[in-house]
Amino acid sequence: MPKRRAAREPVDDVLHALADPSRRRIVERLIRSPATVSELAEPLPMSLPAVVQHLQVLEASGLVVSEKSGRVRTCRVQPAALRPVERWVVAQRSTWERRLDRLGDYLGEAS
Amino acid sequence: MPKRRAAREPVDDVLHALADPSRRRIVERLIRSPATVSELAEPLPMSLPAVVQHLQVLEASGLVVSEKSGRVRTCRVQPAALRPVERWVVAQRSTWERRLDRLGDYLGEAS
Repeated sequence: MPKRRAAREPVDDVLHALADPSRRRIVERLIRSPATVSELAEPLPMSLPAVVQHLQVLEASGLVVSEKSGRVRTCRVQPAALRPVERWVVAQRSTWERRLDRLGDYLGEAS
Repeated sequence: MPKRRAAREPVDDVLHALADPSRRRIVERLIRSPATVSELAEPLPMSLPAVVQHLQVLEASGLVVSEKSGRVRTCRVQPAALRPVERWVVAQRSTWERRLDRLGDYLGEAS
């Protein structure tokens, strides 16, 4: 049987981008303020080309945008890209809590 | 320069597991109630081995546990594994909102 895949969704790229601790560090930094690529690279234990690769993944997901002025590239976060992730996780928690409530009602009635 | 990586964190595996629409469908299904592997496979447009592969990724992340009784494997979700994801996303939003508040204060003082 061929392996078929469900259609990809934009939130896939956001979750993939966030599934790396260095990329989360970059987002956490940019949430505070815009930063140049060198400023982003400074605290990270990796080469500048590695940071640039991570930024490409973040830009592809829509979490980060960047602008070049002369030789300096400045990055900004797009927090709206996190909303579908938050919505999904919160929806799962609330479905789970309703399930626990129903179980509680059932146990309450049974006792 | 060698490419170095930041130390992996458990939430990396959860985010990676969620970065696939079929795996999110499986979690959404299991949030409602436990299910057998065949029940999970039924609505998904893929082969049973493909579903089993997805379940392995979900189990490795801690989002799903399973138990075999005879020939039937039943899966359950572990919603606690979603908490670090929710915490991280909410923390980013609240840092962002504080930044907007400070900007608002600044603009208010300036006007």
